[in-house]
Amino acid sequence: MRKGATGMKRIFEIDPWKIVTHSLDKGNKRLQESITSIGNEYMGMRGMFEEKYSGDTHPGIYLGGVWYPDKTRVGWWKNGYPEYFGKVINAVDFVSLDLQVNGESIDLAKDKFTDFSLELDMKHGLLTRSFIVYKGDAKVQVESERFVSVACKELYTNRLKFKNLGEKPVVLNVTSMINANVYNEDANYDEQFWNVLGQNTDRESLQMTAQTIPNDFGTPRFIVAMKAVHQTSLEYQTQTKETKMVSAKWQKKLNANDQAEFEKKVIVTTSRDYATRAQIEQAAADLSKEQAAKSFETLLSDHEDIWEKRWEKSDIIISGNEESQQGIRFNLFQLFSTYYGNDSRLNIGPKGFTGEKYGGATYWDTEAFAVPFYLGAAPANVTRNLLQYRHNQLSGAYHNAQEQGLNGALFPMVTFNGIECHNEWEITFEEIHRNGTIAYAIYNYTRYTGDQEYVHNDGFDVLVGIARFWADRVHFSKRQGKYMIHGVTGPNEYENNVNNNWYTNTLAKWCLEYTEKIAQEVSAKKIQEFNLTHEERQKWQQISQNMYLPFDEKLGIFVQHDTFLDKDLTPVKDLPQEQLPLNQHWSWDHILRSPYIKQADVLQGIYYFIDRFSESEKRRNFDFYEPLTVHESSLSAATHAVLAADLHKEEKAFEMYSRTARLDLDNYNNDTDDGLHVTSMTGSWLAIVQGFAGMRVKNNKLALAPFVPQQWDGYSFRLNFRGRLLSVTVDKKGTKLSLLTGKPLEIILNGKPIVVEMEAK
Amino acid sequence: MRKGATGMKRIFEIDPWKIVTHSLDKGNKRLQESITSIGNEYMGMRGMFEEKYSGDTHPGIYLGGVWYPDKTRVGWWKNGYPEYFGKVINAVDFVSLDLQVNGESIDLAKDKFTDFSLELDMKHGLLTRSFIVYKGDAKVQVESERFVSVACKELYTNRLKFKNLGEKPVVLNVTSMINANVYNEDANYDEQFWNVLGQNTDRESLQMTAQTIPNDFGTPRFIVAMKAVHQTSLEYQTQTKETKMVSAKWQKKLNANDQAEFEKKVIVTTSRDYATRAQIEQAAADLSKEQAAKSFETLLSDHEDIWEKRWEKSDIIISGNEESQQGIRFNLFQLFSTYYGNDSRLNIGPKGFTGEKYGGATYWDTEAFAVPFYLGAAPANVTRNLLQYRHNQLSGAYHNAQEQGLNGALFPMVTFNGIECHNEWEITFEEIHRNGTIAYAIYNYTRYTGDQEYVHNDGFDVLVGIARFWADRVHFSKRQGKYMIHGVTGPNEYENNVNNNWYTNTLAKWCLEYTEKIAQEVSAKKIQEFNLTHEERQKWQQISQNMYLPFDEKLGIFVQHDTFLDKDLTPVKDLPQEQLPLNQHWSWDHILRSPYIKQADVLQGIYYFIDRFSESEKRRNFDFYEPLTVHESSLSAATHAVLAADLHKEEKAFEMYSRTARLDLDNYNNDTDDGLHVTSMTGSWLAIVQGFAGMRVKNNKLALAPFVPQQWDGYSFRLNFRGRLLSVTVDKKGTKLSLLTGKPLEIILNGKPIVVEMEAK
Repeated sequence: MRKGATGMKRIFEIDPWKIVTHSLDKGNKRLQESITSIGNEYMGMRGMFEEKYSGDTHPGIYLGGVWYPDKTRVGWWKNGYPEYFGKVINAVDFVSLDLQVNGESIDLAKDKFTDFSLELDMKHGLLTRSFIVYKGDAKVQVESERFVSVACKELYTNRLKFKNLGEKPVVLNVTSMINANVYNEDANYDEQFWNVLGQNTDRESLQMTAQTIPNDFGTPRFIVAMKAVHQTSLEYQTQTKETKMVSAKWQKKLNANDQAEFEKKVIVTTSRDYATRAQIEQAAADLSKEQAAKSFETLLSDHEDIWEKRWEKSDIIISGNEESQQGIRFNLFQLFSTYYGNDSRLNIGPKGFTGEKYGGATYWDTEAFAVPFYLGAAPANVTRNLLQYRHNQLSGAYHNAQEQGLNGALFPMVTFNGIECHNEWEITFEEIHRNGTIAYAIYNYTRYTGDQEYVHNDGFDVLVGIARFWADRVHFSKRQGKYMIHGVTGPNEYENNVNNNWYTNTLAKWCLEYTEKIAQEVSAKKIQEFNLTHEERQKWQQISQNMYLPFDEKLGIFVQHDTFLDKDLTPVKDLPQEQLPLNQHWSWDHILRSPYIKQADVLQGIYYFIDRFSESEKRRNFDFYEPLTVHESSLSAATHAVLAADLHKEEKAFEMYSRTARLDLDNYNNDTDDGLHVTSMTGSWLAIVQGFAGMRVKNNKLALAPFVPQQWDGYSFRLNFRGRLLSVTVDKKGTKLSLLTGKPLEIILNGKPIVVEMEAK
Repeated sequence: MRKGATGMKRIFEIDPWKIVTHSLDKGNKRLQESITSIGNEYMGMRGMFEEKYSGDTHPGIYLGGVWYPDKTRVGWWKNGYPEYFGKVINAVDFVSLDLQVNGESIDLAKDKFTDFSLELDMKHGLLTRSFIVYKGDAKVQVESERFVSVACKELYTNRLKFKNLGEKPVVLNVTSMINANVYNEDANYDEQFWNVLGQNTDRESLQMTAQTIPNDFGTPRFIVAMKAVHQTSLEYQTQTKETKMVSAKWQKKLNANDQAEFEKKVIVTTSRDYATRAQIEQAAADLSKEQAAKSFETLLSDHEDIWEKRWEKSDIIISGNEESQQGIRFNLFQLFSTYYGNDSRLNIGPKGFTGEKYGGATYWDTEAFAVPFYLGAAPANVTRNLLQYRHNQLSGAYHNAQEQGLNGALFPMVTFNGIECHNEWEITFEEIHRNGTIAYAIYNYTRYTGDQEYVHNDGFDVLVGIARFWADRVHFSKRQGKYMIHGVTGPNEYENNVNNNWYTNTLAKWCLEYTEKIAQEVSAKKIQEFNLTHEERQKWQQISQNMYLPFDEKLGIFVQHDTFLDKDLTPVKDLPQEQLPLNQHWSWDHILRSPYIKQADVLQGIYYFIDRFSESEKRRNFDFYEPLTVHESSLSAATHAVLAADLHKEEKAFEMYSRTARLDLDNYNNDTDDGLHVTSMTGSWLAIVQGFAGMRVKNNKLALAPFVPQQWDGYSFRLNFRGRLLSVTVDKKGTKLSLLTGKPLEIILNGKPIVVEMEAK
């Protein structure tokens, strides 16, 4: 596989609505599995095959919010490190089947096969697969369809069809199982995470109840009950209970051209939703009874209806470029599979349900990149639940600050429960700009939705915690007569432990100002609740008014941090191409002392407050920093695309859009085998809507200033805004706005106000 | 146990030549074991008891240069990290005995006992212990003496005496063993490090040959043969071979007042000295035959003679302060037990043979602190072998630089074989000032001994590698028109990843200048060997002449690094005392952004080149930095003591001396239970000789300018200088110099030249 920034590995065909391939690329099996992941926000899974596969594979089935505190493992302990790293764990395997032809397991890693087809239908959330396998004389066609239902979150369904295409009869066996013998690849101590509490089988069903193993940290132990029911034309044979596994076996002799069907419907309930083991098991039994009564077709159609409604609210159509069309739909599909705001206890891990990497936990990606996406692509409550998630975890954030000897609340870099999990000092203790983004998301939500209720209540709780953290984290430099923030890592993680990172200082200053502004609006009771004195608020003002923000007079730019300009500022284009990406070719110290920027840093701050800077300020900073940026974080391109579009650098904007649009489909960073870059997938939406279409909110009004990239004929998208659903269609002739639902709305289009109303039907 | 910078835990009595206690402090058993460590440079051991001890204990027996590459364990891998961390491993246990009275093991953790005494005779390198133990009716006196011979490096000897002090007869059993079932406490993967190749017993001896387990990194696997012989008045009973253990048992019935003796003499030979297993075992057999023929008294007296000769060359006598007297002798004793220059393949681990911590490997402590000590306290060849050690490992240093993508040689932070072992990016990749100290040690040796041969040959090889590293590691800042070194950690490890650390830049500049100077002196062949062109040497000059050295005009001080003066510069004395030591009370980020200095940094550079700075420069820097220094590295105090003395701050010099003199004896840093701070032990010698006595080498002449600290009546010390052995006696009346061996010598005493000659006998 090619490596490097210009690397590309595409294993699926181009199709506007489908992810489809007609060959099995065994050397890229993990990549295939990542891309064909499916999920329903409650649970999800990678695209491993149901049947045995003896080649390289990375199976993964995950339940939202079910995790284990893996003991921290470091080479050298630093004071303040968290005790554990929360990790999403592989759920008990309720997917695997053993398919046998004449007593031998089908195994596409070894068997001869033809007519392979694998297809993810993004419009309907259905994964199908078919092939003809040859075992000795036997020739059998196998088809599989599976989905995790968005109509009944606890339901996983899989239907298989078999046909004997050979001349002789074959004996077909299907063994269905629930198996708790699962491991994570990414765990510190090679543990199995599940204890089986009980298991049962009968002719129609398999049952297991399992609990996560004990831990030393007092975090919840999760109980999960699974009930699998089967409908099939095969004949029931035997059932088996082993340690940590239950299975049942069916058989049928198929004469030439005979067909058979096998359906497996699994209900998964957990202690996240029910209080006791009995209740969890009862719920599984009840739901199983209710759902098993329905035909596969009914279950699928309930599921597909909901997916179609989602697309109505958020589809993007791109004319004249099928690659782009597929890319944006794939991103929307995977984002909605990961999160659709139905449970404020859940969030968006960087890999969603598509891999173990990064522990499956919550990062600041959510607030920086997912919030602005969901604001436009889904109803307001979806985003509000993302904010509520942080409010729920406020006590953890206070804990984190206290661990560093600081006042207030520090939201974690990585978490399941609000308590910091990460254990690199330069990140854990220093990448504190994340705290600013938590506050910014509240501002962003409030500005976009117009909902003041959140920020005046729960939102204010969060803001006060954050403001108090910053007020304690700064120090006053007598020498400079300014407040400073030393020892931070900015969004550019290719520099660590820098002083006065402009982005961090800017956000800290803004947090103090914004919290003070909101403090003027909230109830006296709220002020009292926090014992927020005049003195403390004055201190906040004193700090924000005297915050040091590095600026270079000569270049007219904000300086990334104190000594950045002393570096050897050779632009990226002058580096030997074979040294890119730097993170695969340079030792860490070399990267650190270089000027090369992993992802937008100063420019991220300009993006956040894009309307507060003059065009020349934006241009000077963009022109200075972009040539030094290697975009080795998948979170970089979107920000640059929006800014480039804002500066009418349409070519650059499209180049940046292209890096994010098919990042996983084309395995651009050569790491999609670990899982998809789910939070980065928002980037292509942001590039189109905030970039090409210039969407902003200014003075409570939606503003648009669209252009069409040269490579496209046009594009259209849906926008959710303050209770309305808008359709925006842009082509080379102009922009067409229409209101699909809601009251008439004034929109600023290319600087001029227009009112859009629903057309009479 | 009290913690904190002012903490002190003294468990031994004050005595000028002995480390002695009459009580067993079970709560501080590990501390006792550390302090009563013994060694002979070839091997050494902590002061664990020979017999069973079921309480908290940390046994440790180590063989110089016998190590294992423990697989690197980090939380998050960084490009360039070394694959393994070399660790000193616990040798096969040849020390343990089981002593039984009436069939029950003596175990002082549980048994009733009286008359306990434990004594380390520093003059003779002998550890003795005695107690009376009560088991039921029985009352038995036990005495033990042990030493690792400096006359025969392979020899460990232990003699036990027993006396029945009770009224009834007792049955005494002694079981002697060689046991390969040993673990390190500090290992990454809970491994046992020894495979037994063969083991044997007979009436008079136990034998085992063991090999370190295989490793993935191609580093040597060590073979060790042990042969234990026994002389005893007890009767031989049985012998046992178990997996990884051989043992033999003796017994005697002792009537009231009966006595018995038991001697164990163990020879340990290794593949470091012999090529094949057969040769190793033969050597063990031969040496055992030779040594076992000698009586315990003869063996001990051979050993004691050598220790006495060492003291003649290096003893320091302090009048009027027994605590100081004991402290300095303890430090000299432990340093000589660790290293006396007999094997250039060995070096001085920070814990010597007294613990596992820091892996037992070589650090830059050797060049910075041990070299100046051994130069004065031992003949020149001792130090030359320390330099040779680095030359032997030059290829490893080239490897390290290459791993970072740099030219030249980078000597490692931690190593057994020259290849870097450490895995914290801020240390491994950034604490590169160590490379300067390797060069400085060559300069220091050359200046002190007058030996030019080394620097013109092997020393030059080392210098060229180091110079080439620096020339590639700097970058040119166009903005400042200067060469800079970004991304380093200075000697003050309480700051990481700083830019333009004055100490590092100063050393780098000096290295380039010094290498160029030596290049003018070496043979044309040497120049050719390195293909050292005029162009390259000009580049070195260009860099050294244009190196950026941060300086503050207003304060008139060298600046620790670029942004140091922007910090909140509250002095240490104004910190709440309960927050000290910072490393036990503050989270790591808090320490990093504070101005508090762990150990001399700018001042370390001034110390190295003390005669190149004016008194006012030295004073301004000392007065600025010392108040910000927390001395939480045991390596800090000596440097400060010497500089304070230089500046006539006699009280401060004595305060600093006091921190280093009894660091371990008084467990000042509350961490001596892990092992002694062996490399720091040089500090008290440096404080006395370079500090109080003002010893310098100026223009090839030894210079002294002594004073007597107020707390003392006087002091005298021996100095090895250019083939002479001098005695220096300082009291309140003045300084008396005498030449004990060698040709007459001109010495600058208090600025005036005098000639010392040997007195006629």
